[in-house]
Amino acid sequence: MIFGSDNMVGASPRVLAAIQAANEGTAPSYGADPWCAAALAALGEVFERPVQAYFVSTGTVANSLALAALVPPWGAVLCQRDGHVLADESSAPEFFTGGARLVPLAPVAGKLTPEVVAARLANTGHPPHHAVPRALSITQANERGLVYTPDEVAALARCGRGHGLRMHMDGARFANAVASLGCSPAELTWKAGVDVLCLGASKNGALMAEAVVFFDAALARDFEFRVKRAGQMAAKARFFGAQFGAWLADGHWLALAHGANAVAARLAAGLDGVPGVRRVWPVQANEVFVVLPRALGERLRAQGAVFYDWPEDTLPEGQALGAHEMLVRFVASFASRPEDADALIAAAAAAGA
Amino acid sequence: MIFGSDNMVGASPRVLAAIQAANEGTAPSYGADPWCAAALAALGEVFERPVQAYFVSTGTVANSLALAALVPPWGAVLCQRDGHVLADESSAPEFFTGGARLVPLAPVAGKLTPEVVAARLANTGHPPHHAVPRALSITQANERGLVYTPDEVAALARCGRGHGLRMHMDGARFANAVASLGCSPAELTWKAGVDVLCLGASKNGALMAEAVVFFDAALARDFEFRVKRAGQMAAKARFFGAQFGAWLADGHWLALAHGANAVAARLAAGLDGVPGVRRVWPVQANEVFVVLPRALGERLRAQGAVFYDWPEDTLPEGQALGAHEMLVRFVASFASRPEDADALIAAAAAAGA
Amino acid sequence: MIFGSDNMVGASPRVLAAIQAANEGTAPSYGADPWCAAALAALGEVFERPVQAYFVSTGTVANSLALAALVPPWGAVLCQRDGHVLADESSAPEFFTGGARLVPLAPVAGKLTPEVVAARLANTGHPPHHAVPRALSITQANERGLVYTPDEVAALARCGRGHGLRMHMDGARFANAVASLGCSPAELTWKAGVDVLCLGASKNGALMAEAVVFFDAALARDFEFRVKRAGQMAAKARFFGAQFGAWLADGHWLALAHGANAVAARLAAGLDGVPGVRRVWPVQANEVFVVLPRALGERLRAQGAVFYDWPEDTLPEGQALGAHEMLVRFVASFASRPEDADALIAAAAAAGA
Amino acid sequence: MIFGSDNMVGASPRVLAAIQAANEGTAPSYGADPWCAAALAALGEVFERPVQAYFVSTGTVANSLALAALVPPWGAVLCQRDGHVLADESSAPEFFTGGARLVPLAPVAGKLTPEVVAARLANTGHPPHHAVPRALSITQANERGLVYTPDEVAALARCGRGHGLRMHMDGARFANAVASLGCSPAELTWKAGVDVLCLGASKNGALMAEAVVFFDAALARDFEFRVKRAGQMAAKARFFGAQFGAWLADGHWLALAHGANAVAARLAAGLDGVPGVRRVWPVQANEVFVVLPRALGERLRAQGAVFYDWPEDTLPEGQALGAHEMLVRFVASFASRPEDADALIAAAAAAGA
Repeated sequence: MIFGSDNMVGASPRVLAAIQAANEGTAPSYGADPWCAAALAALGEVFERPVQAYFVSTGTVANSLALAALVPPWGAVLCQRDGHVLADESSAPEFFTGGARLVPLAPVAGKLTPEVVAARLANTGHPPHHAVPRALSITQANERGLVYTPDEVAALARCGRGHGLRMHMDGARFANAVASLGCSPAELTWKAGVDVLCLGASKNGALMAEAVVFFDAALARDFEFRVKRAGQMAAKARFFGAQFGAWLADGHWLALAHGANAVAARLAAGLDGVPGVRRVWPVQANEVFVVLPRALGERLRAQGAVFYDWPEDTLPEGQALGAHEMLVRFVASFASRPEDADALIAAAAAAGA
Repeated sequence: MIFGSDNMVGASPRVLAAIQAANEGTAPSYGADPWCAAALAALGEVFERPVQAYFVSTGTVANSLALAALVPPWGAVLCQRDGHVLADESSAPEFFTGGARLVPLAPVAGKLTPEVVAARLANTGHPPHHAVPRALSITQANERGLVYTPDEVAALARCGRGHGLRMHMDGARFANAVASLGCSPAELTWKAGVDVLCLGASKNGALMAEAVVFFDAALARDFEFRVKRAGQMAAKARFFGAQFGAWLADGHWLALAHGANAVAARLAAGLDGVPGVRRVWPVQANEVFVVLPRALGERLRAQGAVFYDWPEDTLPEGQALGAHEMLVRFVASFASRPEDADALIAAAAAAGA
Repeated sequence: MIFGSDNMVGASPRVLAAIQAANEGTAPSYGADPWCAAALAALGEVFERPVQAYFVSTGTVANSLALAALVPPWGAVLCQRDGHVLADESSAPEFFTGGARLVPLAPVAGKLTPEVVAARLANTGHPPHHAVPRALSITQANERGLVYTPDEVAALARCGRGHGLRMHMDGARFANAVASLGCSPAELTWKAGVDVLCLGASKNGALMAEAVVFFDAALARDFEFRVKRAGQMAAKARFFGAQFGAWLADGHWLALAHGANAVAARLAAGLDGVPGVRRVWPVQANEVFVVLPRALGERLRAQGAVFYDWPEDTLPEGQALGAHEMLVRFVASFASRPEDADALIAAAAAAGA
Repeated sequence: MIFGSDNMVGASPRVLAAIQAANEGTAPSYGADPWCAAALAALGEVFERPVQAYFVSTGTVANSLALAALVPPWGAVLCQRDGHVLADESSAPEFFTGGARLVPLAPVAGKLTPEVVAARLANTGHPPHHAVPRALSITQANERGLVYTPDEVAALARCGRGHGLRMHMDGARFANAVASLGCSPAELTWKAGVDVLCLGASKNGALMAEAVVFFDAALARDFEFRVKRAGQMAAKARFFGAQFGAWLADGHWLALAHGANAVAARLAAGLDGVPGVRRVWPVQANEVFVVLPRALGERLRAQGAVFYDWPEDTLPEGQALGAHEMLVRFVASFASRPEDADALIAAAAAAGA
């Protein structure tokens, strides 16, 4: 009943086997090895076009470096109030961008909309006195477990583009979004106007590997300098390449995401039947947000269930917690099994009975 | 005949096995797992005292973050002219320190000496107009394959301490130095006045893992914030822990280093007998620097030998390259075998004949 | 009818005369001159205690450097949504703090309250993943022309102090606030818990001079290094000293502020009688915010009146602009005369008739 | 006998009068005033072409911002070992550039030469691992009182240009160099390949005013954002404009520099005749460097003479101080009179007798 985070499990066996296989022999350092080359080629196939991609060790550095490539230090990045780049990465984005600003926007029904973005852009202020919006950042799937459809992404990108904004997608759970939407990775990114995707593998089957994927090579100019200065130019980069290669091969990444999504859906459906449990958001990826009676939550934890409290201010507009309620998040990982969900549902049902 | 760098090989089998073993099951994220705890305990044993240690993915970020903990943005770090922090890490140290300055010092017989440091410190300038020296950084083993004895480290630290300088040791090849000197890790670090050691495992048996080891807990205050902002707080930190645990267990790290050092010594001894080859520095760790006739170097490369050109300005004072000579570096790794050295020696002898 | 900003006029005659007087002869550079010494002594008298103070050329750099002394790069500064540090200084605060974050808070009745601050602090997040609040910044008088009483300042400081927050006061119009409240500068600052005051003279009689005033000397440690690195250690600092000395002497600074406040009050009272004009905030310093019929505003401008449009989202909660209305700000300076206000009132009355 | 620095005097009467004249009435803030416009026009005339120029308060911030416009954070700036940007501005250049590196070069006969620059550029290293030279910075007149002829500037710029380097000139004493060389400001800057000149007025007649002058408008792109973020967008910018306008009008700036240079020359000639005094560098601007018997130096100071000790390592190659000698610098300012020089010479002659 471990649903704390999808980063609490290890790597998928295929990814781990690839690391082991790549361990043999010598190879050039710093990315000039065949595994990195193969992974880049695989990314090109997945996205149906040549891309510029750089491998790094965490999502925080991936996002921060990507934003640094999109906005100058006097620029601003519009993002959702509870977006990971704003809420969970300390001030790393400020650090890597040289002091650019993240501007929190209130979501509508859990996501950013062109209307919200346009309203903020209408009030542009007086440069150079004000930080100038230069990028829009969305999370896919987002921090409330919701996905943006290709049309929604395109509408947001179009809105931003009209004001000179670049489009960044934090794809820590991009695989879950693609698996959920059934569209192509291309449709969800560059075809919809995304300039840079931070493609996360760590939460979905890799050991430690993220890719910053540029669809516009011009934006990647000098990016290797940023990677180096960030201390992310790994000597044994072949292991990044090996992880991504295995992860992307034969749709493994999507298969893993499908598994996680399915368990999340199963869990949500089961919890819907438990009295006193109130679902907060539709389950569109691998995260389930529910309001629980506090006593129920505590009993579940006493039985070994792992899940996180979530801030009340992420509830849908107009909703609030009751005096004895808690908002919690369950996350299914690629390694979660249907029986894990069933066990938690059963425990909840028993506890509530 | 691959002697390009010790980062051109993978992980040792024991380290790899540990990664595989750690892959099972779920664990708390961000370092709150048993593998990290065990690795920290192992570091405490190796250094014979409790330490504060933080795991990161590259030597560049390890050094840069360590320096950031030692000097304010208006501080200066004294280091050898060709020290890795100055010469090979782009301006990452400036980035992570918020703009502190690295001050290049000319070595004597390949290493920094208290006299060189003292001469620079005698000329302190007028704060706040001048960058104020606040740390001394040495590499152990250094960029010329030389090691500092515990006494030499202590003399440097003492010299710096008298002017308020902290002592940083870039230990990307610390294992090779310990193996070479036969002293204890404690004698070579905190007992000699080192404040922070960047302990490199990546070059000597790990996949991708470095530790920033603080011997003075006060200096580590807020360091976790630096790690987080650097994008180095890995979700699946257990794999850092697993690597370090296996690497340190049963003296594995030193056994690996002994192996590399022995091959380097064998290679150096063999090359000494090749006409036209001129040894540049004593071989005290796993690196061999020689001047080769350019024709010989090219013939060796044509036969598959891999080694790097090295800048002429690192030759001992007063020496220069002849018109048809080249300065090159051979590095033995933990995976190098005696027969690799023998093959290169034989090829050199044959080519020179 | 020039009410655009209090920075549209020059220096007061007394300040200018002091500059001229200080121009004679030679003096040590970089602040080691008698004028700076005298100005520091005057600040000590005004604040009834020894202070550490540093002179700089603009309010932006004063605020940014002060915040840099209060929060680490991973810290957050709580401030009003439309506070000058957040809304009007580009990302200078991020630049000087090394990437700290400004957190916008919604005001209540135009000002921050302990409740608003406490609500934000209740949700502290999980360090080091989240930016950690380390300072509270208020503007006195604030961007809506409102002043905080000593009790209000103390309540805010107390609220912050309980969570480890330092207290910063942006005093670009501190003189106007003191003149308005009739309290002592000490009561409004350190006695109420303010750690650092950015005391602005530029808007109220100086040519170009601001002081960063520390009431806790420990916080000023190393501040001269920050000043130097900011490019603010002026060679001919005597002119900063001369400006501040003359400005503070004999209550000149408060006399100037009283003059500005009085004209603002006169203007507000007069405009209250003009049909269609709606006052937005009480006039507590030298700024007047009113909603005008757009046609009236345009006619006034056509007659030479100068005033700024102001963002609608600074209206009191629940208020909005009508279709043909505009929100505007009038600012009186020390050089404004009663007849300037009368002229504008008359023009408005005539235009509205 | 005050020859400590040319920043120990105030403003020239004409500059001060201009400040006073500009104090009347209201004007738009932040540089949109007629004085700034007139000063920009005057700069265009002086340099015989349209320029982009920005006024700031100190030379440190002028140089640092200019370098930030020329090099990325991973770039390096080549400069003389004892250049002001490297030796006297704390780590402000690192701060404003976001962590770029200053690379010290040893001068030949007191100045940089194309040979020295070319030698450093020949060793370019391996990007992105090494900081990449992107700019060359020279001081005119330099820190040893020497000037670069237009031909010398052009040779340096050409050398750098071949490697993609931009050319920065620290012109804190540019007026003295122009006055000394008798060439046109254009010949000494853009016609010789200078991209950005930091034109200092503070040391030569202004109160506090420097201009960053771009000859290539493309390089000035977004520069106003840098100025704003630096806290250098002065509200009452008209006073910068007024200072520069008066300073440039009718060749006033050059007349002031001629005066300073003449006094320096007179002083040098006189000291040449004093036994035991050894001149170090030709006097080409307003600075005189001499080696004095320590006893003589002390006696002069006892009589009220003011001059600075200078670091021994700036002596010409191969020279050293004797046991009882000191290296000192005398600087003449625009306000220095011939009789000041004569007094010092007489005192020296008497003391040495």
